[in-house]
Amino acid sequence: MARFDVVSQGEELVSGSTVDTNAGWIAREMRDRGFEPGRFTVVGDVRDHIRDVLSEAAGRAEVVICTGGLGPTTDDLTAEAAAEAFRTTLALDEVALGQVEARYASRGRVMPPANRKQALLPVGCSVLENRWGTAPAFRIEHEGCVLYFLPGVPSEMKAIWHHHVAPDLDARFALPPRRTILLRCVGLPESEAQGRMDGFAHPGVEVGYRAHLPEIHVKLHLAPDADAEAALADARARLGRHVFTVDGGPLGQVVGELLAARSETVATAESCTAGRIAAMITAVPGSSGWYLGGGVVYANAEKTRQCGVDPELIEREGAVSEPVARALAEGIRTRVGASWGIGVTGIAGPGGGSAEKPVGTVHIAVAGPDGTHHRRLHLPFDRERVMSMTAALALDQLRRQLDGTAN
Amino acid sequence: MARFDVVSQGEELVSGSTVDTNAGWIAREMRDRGFEPGRFTVVGDVRDHIRDVLSEAAGRAEVVICTGGLGPTTDDLTAEAAAEAFRTTLALDEVALGQVEARYASRGRVMPPANRKQALLPVGCSVLENRWGTAPAFRIEHEGCVLYFLPGVPSEMKAIWHHHVAPDLDARFALPPRRTILLRCVGLPESEAQGRMDGFAHPGVEVGYRAHLPEIHVKLHLAPDADAEAALADARARLGRHVFTVDGGPLGQVVGELLAARSETVATAESCTAGRIAAMITAVPGSSGWYLGGGVVYANAEKTRQCGVDPELIEREGAVSEPVARALAEGIRTRVGASWGIGVTGIAGPGGGSAEKPVGTVHIAVAGPDGTHHRRLHLPFDRERVMSMTAALALDQLRRQLDGTAN
Repeated sequence: MARFDVVSQGEELVSGSTVDTNAGWIAREMRDRGFEPGRFTVVGDVRDHIRDVLSEAAGRAEVVICTGGLGPTTDDLTAEAAAEAFRTTLALDEVALGQVEARYASRGRVMPPANRKQALLPVGCSVLENRWGTAPAFRIEHEGCVLYFLPGVPSEMKAIWHHHVAPDLDARFALPPRRTILLRCVGLPESEAQGRMDGFAHPGVEVGYRAHLPEIHVKLHLAPDADAEAALADARARLGRHVFTVDGGPLGQVVGELLAARSETVATAESCTAGRIAAMITAVPGSSGWYLGGGVVYANAEKTRQCGVDPELIEREGAVSEPVARALAEGIRTRVGASWGIGVTGIAGPGGGSAEKPVGTVHIAVAGPDGTHHRRLHLPFDRERVMSMTAALALDQLRRQLDGTAN
Repeated sequence: MARFDVVSQGEELVSGSTVDTNAGWIAREMRDRGFEPGRFTVVGDVRDHIRDVLSEAAGRAEVVICTGGLGPTTDDLTAEAAAEAFRTTLALDEVALGQVEARYASRGRVMPPANRKQALLPVGCSVLENRWGTAPAFRIEHEGCVLYFLPGVPSEMKAIWHHHVAPDLDARFALPPRRTILLRCVGLPESEAQGRMDGFAHPGVEVGYRAHLPEIHVKLHLAPDADAEAALADARARLGRHVFTVDGGPLGQVVGELLAARSETVATAESCTAGRIAAMITAVPGSSGWYLGGGVVYANAEKTRQCGVDPELIEREGAVSEPVARALAEGIRTRVGASWGIGVTGIAGPGGGSAEKPVGTVHIAVAGPDGTHHRRLHLPFDRERVMSMTAALALDQLRRQLDGTAN
């Protein structure tokens, strides 16, 4: 497999004022083509640093994608650094100069003298036409490595990528495409996901894990000759009902699709999650098709007022209890007139815990056409994580009841 | 000036499935301390790559901050690679093991065998206590370079940073104490914040900006001899009532403190924000002292059922209108029996807009002891950002009414 490195150049990146999104975008493009990632490096506006990074990257990788530093100002140093790294000089490139001038002319303007600098490119490079901005892009070949120099502006970078870099790579490297299967899981710590995948062995299949809380993603990277069906079946069997979708969207979207397919609706009564379940559901465009509304029943009086929970029940069992969770789910379902009702009550902390009901104690109930399911959980995390995990697990309980994996 | 390098480790970073936000955060922290950025490198789960990057970084920089790869799974290779890079071996660290076990015990669980691996650390390293997760953090000193190894989970990384790394750096490099004043603003785009600060000039005061949506943070970095009072007064005058706190907490906390000081309470009726205001308020420990609850009134029928909004009013004015926002705020205030009621209705998109009411049209109303204030806004953003900006601006409207800057 051919290796690629990415070099991102810009003082705004090393000062932390801008997050580099180009490298990740390029990584996905390269992985889809079957290239193997090497190093990604970010450097500021120091010519010697840029030069060293470029020459080291060219020594390690078959392909180097470099973004940024091609602008007209004195701190745009990439062309200069590249010339030095590959032992050549800068010269005025007539093709590049014509492009910059034409770009200005097309907007009825005359090119400012400073922009002439953008046409000073390393001798021997090939210019890649940039119809989307003034910074000329170019390609250098050096001792078995091909380097592409692209502007840092994401829209320009991507346009030049699609028009020049991608076809050029496809022509140079006849690499077989790799496929990736994504199993999204919830309610499974990363270490347990890994434990369940212990001994998973299929030729041409690599497994990757990623915590994307409250979700855990398990990825199967498949070589062209791998048996995708067998690998997926094995992974699904190991991860069980924690997998809420294969190659689908986030949990809120999966639940929305399940509800929409059945023309059903849901309402929420949230105590300790205080709106986080509603927020997950409504993050999905079109959610008004399946979500009606509900209550944030933070105070006990609100549990009674909004869901009809008997104050004596709260007094006797405590607000954080199975009967109260059930009453919330059933009460909100009836009052809103939804197909499903979700009720949640728990102790998010940091205060409010006891020996019997420590911080992290949570009761989830989902009321539906066939009655009410209840789960008691203990989530030993900090306040925000108890809240967000509870919201995800409550929504996942509805998902399980919708896709038939609840029991 | 001392140079720092950042090493971010994780297959999810080089595959492009996760954007590395840690490096930028660390860069800002280090710049604030006066360190000079060197290279930032991202590597995947290849032990030899990690080893090479670590030893090269240690050869170039005085400080190396490394994040990621400290988890319990077999693709967490950083400790192993560090041992190899600095010519030592891994050994079971009793302190680290005790921490991982204690972390599980505190949640009433037994440590899974896989997590024992997390306590295998390079011989000679110093363990940095991680009270926020299971991955032990550690420090290595090697030939004039100090390297900190931190978990990749941002919340854990930041907690360990503040508790261990920052004080350690301050002590080692005898950095002059720099004071920073943080002005937290809301409802002000970063470019407008910068525009308002144009011409701000005080000896020994540097200004930094940071978008922390929905907040914008303006920081004044003060040299020991700077006139802090004059600089702060000038900055406040320029940024006006958009500043909701100086050196205080996030918006939900500031509003909570204002309410608690007056022994007042608030209730929410949220349509387009669907729980996000409630979530911001309840993210603050102790919020049950000032937040009672409210409704997520997504469907029109819920606006009527929960807040008594006249269906004819909705029919005549549209659900996204000033009268409906006012009726939501007033209705929820009365029904819940709170001192204040917040009502929000808007078009989050991507669908549902019209020429008269485009996507991003939002009505916010805050009802209180002295009547109801209303604001109409147009937020030309994507769905999630319209939702979160609206939640922040609604909460900020209450803040302005509480601190007397509403008019």
